[in-house]
Amino acid sequence: MEAFVEKGVVGIEHMHQFIDIVGEKYVLKDEGSLNEYGHDETENLLYLPDVVIKPGNAEEISAILRICNEARIPVTPRGAGTGLSGGALPHLGGVLISTERLNSILQIDERNLQVTTQPGVITEVLQDAVKEKGLFYPPDPSSRGSCFIGGNIAANSGGPKAVKYGVVKDYVLNLQVVLPTGKIIWTGANVLKNSTGYNLTQLMVGSEGTLGIVTAIVLRLIPLPKYELLILVPFKSLEKACEAAGAIFRAGFTPSALELVEIEALQIVNKMVGNSAVPLTDDTAAHLIIEVDGNNMETLINDIEAISILLTQYEAGEVYFADDAQQKAELWKLRRRVAEAVKLDGFTIEEDTVVPRAELPELIRGVKTLGKQYHFQAVCYGHAGDGNLHIRIKKSGTGNSQDDPELVEGLRALFALVKRLGGTISGEHGIGLVQKRYMDIMFGETQLQLMRQIKKVFDPNNILNAGKIFDSK
Amino acid sequence: MEAFVEKGVVGIEHMHQFIDIVGEKYVLKDEGSLNEYGHDETENLLYLPDVVIKPGNAEEISAILRICNEARIPVTPRGAGTGLSGGALPHLGGVLISTERLNSILQIDERNLQVTTQPGVITEVLQDAVKEKGLFYPPDPSSRGSCFIGGNIAANSGGPKAVKYGVVKDYVLNLQVVLPTGKIIWTGANVLKNSTGYNLTQLMVGSEGTLGIVTAIVLRLIPLPKYELLILVPFKSLEKACEAAGAIFRAGFTPSALELVEIEALQIVNKMVGNSAVPLTDDTAAHLIIEVDGNNMETLINDIEAISILLTQYEAGEVYFADDAQQKAELWKLRRRVAEAVKLDGFTIEEDTVVPRAELPELIRGVKTLGKQYHFQAVCYGHAGDGNLHIRIKKSGTGNSQDDPELVEGLRALFALVKRLGGTISGEHGIGLVQKRYMDIMFGETQLQLMRQIKKVFDPNNILNAGKIFDSK
Repeated sequence: MEAFVEKGVVGIEHMHQFIDIVGEKYVLKDEGSLNEYGHDETENLLYLPDVVIKPGNAEEISAILRICNEARIPVTPRGAGTGLSGGALPHLGGVLISTERLNSILQIDERNLQVTTQPGVITEVLQDAVKEKGLFYPPDPSSRGSCFIGGNIAANSGGPKAVKYGVVKDYVLNLQVVLPTGKIIWTGANVLKNSTGYNLTQLMVGSEGTLGIVTAIVLRLIPLPKYELLILVPFKSLEKACEAAGAIFRAGFTPSALELVEIEALQIVNKMVGNSAVPLTDDTAAHLIIEVDGNNMETLINDIEAISILLTQYEAGEVYFADDAQQKAELWKLRRRVAEAVKLDGFTIEEDTVVPRAELPELIRGVKTLGKQYHFQAVCYGHAGDGNLHIRIKKSGTGNSQDDPELVEGLRALFALVKRLGGTISGEHGIGLVQKRYMDIMFGETQLQLMRQIKKVFDPNNILNAGKIFDSK
Repeated sequence: MEAFVEKGVVGIEHMHQFIDIVGEKYVLKDEGSLNEYGHDETENLLYLPDVVIKPGNAEEISAILRICNEARIPVTPRGAGTGLSGGALPHLGGVLISTERLNSILQIDERNLQVTTQPGVITEVLQDAVKEKGLFYPPDPSSRGSCFIGGNIAANSGGPKAVKYGVVKDYVLNLQVVLPTGKIIWTGANVLKNSTGYNLTQLMVGSEGTLGIVTAIVLRLIPLPKYELLILVPFKSLEKACEAAGAIFRAGFTPSALELVEIEALQIVNKMVGNSAVPLTDDTAAHLIIEVDGNNMETLINDIEAISILLTQYEAGEVYFADDAQQKAELWKLRRRVAEAVKLDGFTIEEDTVVPRAELPELIRGVKTLGKQYHFQAVCYGHAGDGNLHIRIKKSGTGNSQDDPELVEGLRALFALVKRLGGTISGEHGIGLVQKRYMDIMFGETQLQLMRQIKKVFDPNNILNAGKIFDSK
């Protein structure tokens, strides 16, 4: 799976130029740094860059890209390195550009409910900053305590709140982008509605750093809801839990989170975090975590009661009600740390399938069947309300999906099922390096060719994150 | 303002081929038809196509496009012809393809809260059909009783509800598109979250029929809110009305509509529709129309009361409360027919500016000043909650903006102001033919070049709606 890139080499003259641009302190070649920036959270993969550069602003990034574009040096942009599909892996070597020094929130515009931020701000830091002003930026990937908002833009991230509030793309109004040629543009305007030419903003969101490096971001915000209620509900089967999830929406409710966790995953994370606050019973196959939010507590209580009653039709067990802030925090901690915990437990490979919500039971049955057929163990969890199912895979003898032909075959069968159900292979993680071999399941040659040509429009020399999403030339 | 297109001619051999594809009945060359399809709702412009074709499905459209692509014949796709920027005007002659026969709702998926529809369905028909199932498709342009959902996709339309529920792009999950080369693709998947390659779906939305002809549309739906309350509030000045609009959001409310209408516009439409139900007082400069919706009537009453109290700080007059369904319908009819009424009154030219919400007073002051300077009269109305201000212009001696150098100069000054305020030149109507000469105010050559090259990726021979949005070659 080589990218078709005419690969330039980082020479000593380039190193001098990079040092002139950003200063010696921010051009790193030591083994420790190369290793640190050589991996993200994807499986057990490691690729060393030739050099790590930490520019301080868009102009420096522009200057670096001009040099690399001229010399055909591969460039990999990187946020916090929390990605799960290898989008930030420098698999071609070359220059790795970290956006970690672009870490300022530039303006919180309370008059217009907007925030302008640099990409290297941690998502939760941004959320907390606007929260202090009574404002709300909903997209909240599980890694929000460590991931960067810029990476969220690159992956079009979601998170639990997406089910009510939408994903990153629904909040991005305008982006400052350094193109691979070094030119700096704004993609749109700071407005809620925009029908002015092709939507370059939306094209950039989810393009995984292949079309440009985002250096400033304008996000819309909404008023912070005053209250939220949170429950944990056990089910005797995964399918019933998924059916129940669908029924909640059909009954007219829109929860602010509707998460599914298979019992095995919850037991693993429970052990890891030493939880004692949240009760887990043994005759349970899966839980739903359901949150409702709004400005009227009475309405929320009514909703949660109505939802609880509805769930009894799906053989739900006893509802655990998170009474106070601490219990809520405990329960969310359990949910948010699932990926980390099951990874430590050997479930190294994470899939990010998404299907129309009502097809989840069918998908889950398929996962279990395919696991038997292709000899892998799978635990399922994720955003049931969106139909977005994370599948964590453990397979004896392999730490990544790339080197195991049987697993690749199993995943192809899984994704073919996802496609048949009207779904797709990534809901919020992106394609990056490890999923690109499956893109042909989702798209025919016509769509892939459109994407490759769009890539070429932005990056004629194919230097920026080449070989991610698809092989490009 | 010629498009750089190597223009092929519709010959007799092509006519025979078109008749073979769709049948004689659906290939029209009579003067009446050419005139009917030679204009839309834009100013007083008329351009005759060589032929009007009404295909019945995607395959027929594909066959027509293959012929035109081969012969370099200009093709203009058209929905209901309600556009306000000339996107459907066949200004290069050639073939006009009407989507009016693709008028079926294909599936309402109640399990997944989705609808699949053909493009030629009238927006309100679609809304009513899903409403019967307790579901809600919010985007509702004023022309929803006559416009097509396909045209809404092309323009990325909005409407009053956008302020709470978002615009068309926020509801489109997946599109079937016939490319200018005749190839038929799906752009995405029927899912709520999607990080699988470049967002071709979002690139297509708002591309005004320049990249492909949409032949099937998958939209997400939401549960229909049970109740809505509607008020009309008079203000002594336009600026105060706009300031009040901003204050509502800052106080944490999100109305489901927040419309502004200048008194002159309301008086004109009032006369036209013979309204007697809604009281209009004389010492008023503008009104806000405010709607809240939700599932809890008590909450809505509390919200409307709190909003009414807040508005007194902005010198609001007496609040008129639309008591029953009929009064609500009367009030909405007044609002929805403003454009039509002021057009009949000589305000032929409509602008679709949008700025960050809090900058509306500044924009309105600018409009009035520029009107004096460039000798035009302007009435303002539109979606104050979104910062989306429609400006209807009357200028003695001209029925369109294209032929009046003084007006063009005035509009350039207006759009420069919009840009300075962080806004853009179209919020929901699109650029089409009449706004493209102002695109350089919003975008530099770099962005325009990206757009032109994207156009070329989809349409190498530049046959499809060429010369719309920008001059392409």
